[in-house]
Amino acid sequence: MKVGILGATGYTGQELIRILSNHPEAEIVYLGSSSSAGKGIRDIYPHLVNQSMILEDENVPDLDVLFMALPHGLASTKAAELLNRGIKVIDLGADFRLKDPGIYREWYGTEPADQKLLQKAVYGLPELYRNDIFGQDLVANPGCYPTASLLALVPLVRADLLLPDSIVIDAKSGVSGAGRGVSLTVHYSEVNENLKAYGVGQHRHTPEIEQQLSKAASRQITVSFTPHLVPMTRGILATIYAQVKPGVSEGALREMWREAYETEPFIHVLSEGIWPQTKYAYGSNHVFLQLKLDKRTGRVILVSALDNLVKGASGQAVQNMNILFELPETTGLEFNGLWP
Amino acid sequence: MKVGILGATGYTGQELIRILSNHPEAEIVYLGSSSSAGKGIRDIYPHLVNQSMILEDENVPDLDVLFMALPHGLASTKAAELLNRGIKVIDLGADFRLKDPGIYREWYGTEPADQKLLQKAVYGLPELYRNDIFGQDLVANPGCYPTASLLALVPLVRADLLLPDSIVIDAKSGVSGAGRGVSLTVHYSEVNENLKAYGVGQHRHTPEIEQQLSKAASRQITVSFTPHLVPMTRGILATIYAQVKPGVSEGALREMWREAYETEPFIHVLSEGIWPQTKYAYGSNHVFLQLKLDKRTGRVILVSALDNLVKGASGQAVQNMNILFELPETTGLEFNGLWP
Amino acid sequence: MKVGILGATGYTGQELIRILSNHPEAEIVYLGSSSSAGKGIRDIYPHLVNQSMILEDENVPDLDVLFMALPHGLASTKAAELLNRGIKVIDLGADFRLKDPGIYREWYGTEPADQKLLQKAVYGLPELYRNDIFGQDLVANPGCYPTASLLALVPLVRADLLLPDSIVIDAKSGVSGAGRGVSLTVHYSEVNENLKAYGVGQHRHTPEIEQQLSKAASRQITVSFTPHLVPMTRGILATIYAQVKPGVSEGALREMWREAYETEPFIHVLSEGIWPQTKYAYGSNHVFLQLKLDKRTGRVILVSALDNLVKGASGQAVQNMNILFELPETTGLEFNGLWP
Amino acid sequence: MKVGILGATGYTGQELIRILSNHPEAEIVYLGSSSSAGKGIRDIYPHLVNQSMILEDENVPDLDVLFMALPHGLASTKAAELLNRGIKVIDLGADFRLKDPGIYREWYGTEPADQKLLQKAVYGLPELYRNDIFGQDLVANPGCYPTASLLALVPLVRADLLLPDSIVIDAKSGVSGAGRGVSLTVHYSEVNENLKAYGVGQHRHTPEIEQQLSKAASRQITVSFTPHLVPMTRGILATIYAQVKPGVSEGALREMWREAYETEPFIHVLSEGIWPQTKYAYGSNHVFLQLKLDKRTGRVILVSALDNLVKGASGQAVQNMNILFELPETTGLEFNGLWP
Repeated sequence: MKVGILGATGYTGQELIRILSNHPEAEIVYLGSSSSAGKGIRDIYPHLVNQSMILEDENVPDLDVLFMALPHGLASTKAAELLNRGIKVIDLGADFRLKDPGIYREWYGTEPADQKLLQKAVYGLPELYRNDIFGQDLVANPGCYPTASLLALVPLVRADLLLPDSIVIDAKSGVSGAGRGVSLTVHYSEVNENLKAYGVGQHRHTPEIEQQLSKAASRQITVSFTPHLVPMTRGILATIYAQVKPGVSEGALREMWREAYETEPFIHVLSEGIWPQTKYAYGSNHVFLQLKLDKRTGRVILVSALDNLVKGASGQAVQNMNILFELPETTGLEFNGLWP
Repeated sequence: MKVGILGATGYTGQELIRILSNHPEAEIVYLGSSSSAGKGIRDIYPHLVNQSMILEDENVPDLDVLFMALPHGLASTKAAELLNRGIKVIDLGADFRLKDPGIYREWYGTEPADQKLLQKAVYGLPELYRNDIFGQDLVANPGCYPTASLLALVPLVRADLLLPDSIVIDAKSGVSGAGRGVSLTVHYSEVNENLKAYGVGQHRHTPEIEQQLSKAASRQITVSFTPHLVPMTRGILATIYAQVKPGVSEGALREMWREAYETEPFIHVLSEGIWPQTKYAYGSNHVFLQLKLDKRTGRVILVSALDNLVKGASGQAVQNMNILFELPETTGLEFNGLWP
Repeated sequence: MKVGILGATGYTGQELIRILSNHPEAEIVYLGSSSSAGKGIRDIYPHLVNQSMILEDENVPDLDVLFMALPHGLASTKAAELLNRGIKVIDLGADFRLKDPGIYREWYGTEPADQKLLQKAVYGLPELYRNDIFGQDLVANPGCYPTASLLALVPLVRADLLLPDSIVIDAKSGVSGAGRGVSLTVHYSEVNENLKAYGVGQHRHTPEIEQQLSKAASRQITVSFTPHLVPMTRGILATIYAQVKPGVSEGALREMWREAYETEPFIHVLSEGIWPQTKYAYGSNHVFLQLKLDKRTGRVILVSALDNLVKGASGQAVQNMNILFELPETTGLEFNGLWP
Repeated sequence: MKVGILGATGYTGQELIRILSNHPEAEIVYLGSSSSAGKGIRDIYPHLVNQSMILEDENVPDLDVLFMALPHGLASTKAAELLNRGIKVIDLGADFRLKDPGIYREWYGTEPADQKLLQKAVYGLPELYRNDIFGQDLVANPGCYPTASLLALVPLVRADLLLPDSIVIDAKSGVSGAGRGVSLTVHYSEVNENLKAYGVGQHRHTPEIEQQLSKAASRQITVSFTPHLVPMTRGILATIYAQVKPGVSEGALREMWREAYETEPFIHVLSEGIWPQTKYAYGSNHVFLQLKLDKRTGRVILVSALDNLVKGASGQAVQNMNILFELPETTGLEFNGLWP
């Protein structure tokens, strides 16, 4: 299986290289980079000791599958041609996630992808939409925050256990989620020993979460979503609050998670009382979940933790690739997190 | 003014020393420690270069005021005798915060303080209860999370702008809030590059917050409060969600904050769009606030940031001392945070 | 190949589990722990999602090889019986590293291992002593600091390019090197945003380094070795200073490294001007080297970087196991470091 | 005393504002910034809550003293005019530190300051050169690494206790030393959980250290100086190695430090066996020292710790201002470090 990565020098790009290097069925044959074509990947990332590839420009050769790890707005201009050439495309960006062009315009401020491509694209969150992904050519790999949020919420929303307008998602991310570009926002001295909310009421992952929750509920769901920047490199923790419907017990909530995830290799509902820590997932494709129904308030508190660069990006992309090519879904992803 | 500190070697104790050393009206004459009596304070904290005092046992000499920075349950056994001797007491622990003995028993699992003392104790959050503090002898210094939460919420709850059962407080703290005792919970390698929720649905600051909000609302208020442990040493950020009452505008919310804090030297409502960062308050007694009304959901998102060891503990204790002794409230506290 | 780990709940123990879980030839059949026998390993380390083993007591069953990850002084009392039973032993502790019992007594303050065992034990630094390791039963896995120091120094000392009494090793380690035990030394708030030297002139890795350098030089070498505690979890960087012998060029120094490591899969001499960063090795068994001859002072500065828990402990132990069992040395160790 | 700061928005500039705001004799009347003129300082630094000044352009008004916190090469072009106008100048940059224009050219690659100005400038390390500073108009505030290195070394070099060619300085700095400019070097995800040496054999503080040591020794001294970037915001630790002259005892070394620093308010030789930690100095102007003579090697190991932005820059600059204006040297600087 010949694979390529466009945008190979960003954090998700190089994480794809790390994962795919140990994938028994994949051979990386193309690394594309608009900014670093001609350099060796090890000139940029000396830690990739088993890699001697040279970065190429954006002219994609013939491949079985291309991962696109580009700033939003670029993938949509390139995908049609690639698909025509028979190259499957897994887009780690946002271009194909939102089905409604109006919502895309509103939140991204630019033109959405071509409507035909949008309809063709499948939202690649395997544990929730696996059957939709099989046999497709174009996968919209979910955002990191939506992955954490939807895995916790969708089974409960599908079962109609929550008051739909009561959902509050308070999410926290490590700094690598902001990418490799330089700015004051990622300046060590400004971030270290510091914590802040950002994008309050405006973060672009909000409509992505709402789209999938609305689909699960078969009605429009609006959520409060607030991301925070935490002084650590990797990891997302989503703490989610929702009012349960009258009569819903903690057991009923747990049962939905059990049904959804009992046989999932990457989703781990922890024993009661053990709460997820982002480090449990450090460097791995695993997700950790816990919940508690607070009888005093009638609210359930859901917590999910994952690695934003793995299950929140590159690991999930490889999981999607495995599905597209009918490989066991865990191929190349059977590694635990790093502790401590 | 002769001041003493009992529990001088904990983090809040030594922070009191730092602050009081530069207080023009206070002279530290007693440092008490059950575990380290006989040692010099600089043997434990070499950074306190201007201090040469020897730690004493728990026999408190005659003083004008004693700060008690002890594990909960100890202050309540000592306070009566001290008050009888004419020593004012500022308790940084939890013993005198909860007025309802039943609630104390429920959340702390031990016996509450004597009821007469409890009624005598005043809740020392100056910006909200200044007039109650003047002329008193026994101050219950608020918890760090309640300080952050109540400063954001009380003016809005007093004005009846929020749906009282809709309040969700998602709070995040640096590790110093856990104190100096050793445990896996504060082990560097387990905390660094890691993030988790803890005490979900069970944290003892919950009834403290509810008591003061209920007082502000003149009705019982129950909240969801979830603390998180963040890989940084100092700082608390509280992100608070509440449904506003019909017709309440963002302007109306801001107006309540303006009225409450316009002349407060330590409370800073930031310009619109500038969100609090914990580091703004690093090492200082200042609090930073911001809010946004999300019209899509009808929820207001409030964010407050402070230093858990200063405004969340020792700085606020000194502020209370200033009030008790009729000094300008900012005496000894006029320092900015450290950046970066 | 049936493998066991005694001391499975320490940091090096659980790192062995992580690595061996993906080793195609090894099957973990025994996890021993004096403190946690009876618990599941996932009760302690929820991130080990693919592990369902129960921790046992210290009675070691029949195995092909046992990894001992114990405090010093314990392995030496158990090893003889294990070897008699035909179990190969790889000791991650210090008990078998020092050949001279007097030096062991002087630096460790306790009795050394039995002299016959000591002579039997081989110092397991494969890139330097591979041929000595083949066919042995008892491996003394090197300390983390000695691994970093010796890989940089030995090829140059063997070639007699350095003034032997001029060697200064200034080493820096992440906190995980201190283990999982709780103490103020590893208390997050005391370590974070902080840096210190420790064990100055007294660290027990000093005689280990000197023993191997003396062997390489065929004369007694004494070094200055100063470790530092750095606010990070993983990683060791050793910065080494030595006066070169008259006439020695930078090229001659590089040539020795090239000869020693050109075909080594885990040792990477970086391109000139690129200096090692500990993060290059994060989670991997790789080592990164660079040097520069400063003509102004006649001193060469050598820098080496590795992950203290992998090449500095558990990864190297697995590498040694591969040698003992005549497997390709990289088996189960072909993973890159995690970036960022 | 009317003071101004040119380069007010850099880290050392804003640290000057923090310190001078609490200085009883200084009034900040001018904040100059080439990049942010017209903005309020609180627009850039919201934590400076007591400041409402507007940043101005580089046209300096009449002042008693100007602090210049500019990239190297700029101060030298402006100083003459300022001095002519009777404004004392304290330069936090490198322009006036090196007396030898050839050495400046060699290490900085640009033209040095005018020779007359260079001769006029005094090297502002008060504890070593206090008498030279009194009554001067132009102070070259030392670099952060030289301050840490020279305070440890100069008393011993002056007393001729060390072999002059044996000095190795292994220094470690927090990231704030790199300033506020954005780059991959200060990108959080690239620096966090990472450690590296940089500028090996080439750092510009090398000739500054050598100049002052040579002066102390009355002969040319060349040192090995290697800086490292540590994942923390503030703090410098210098670990220094030197061979002592035959017969020199640890007591003799300590005696020199005692004589030099016994009455110094900012220099603290710790009790034997207590080693400096950078956090002891966090946010303060204090310096912590310790040494040990290793009899095995004949080398003394010296360690000094300070805050690079305070004693390593802005605090020392204010200390110099106090000397220029014949104020008690600790005025405005009597604050302890922040712990934890």
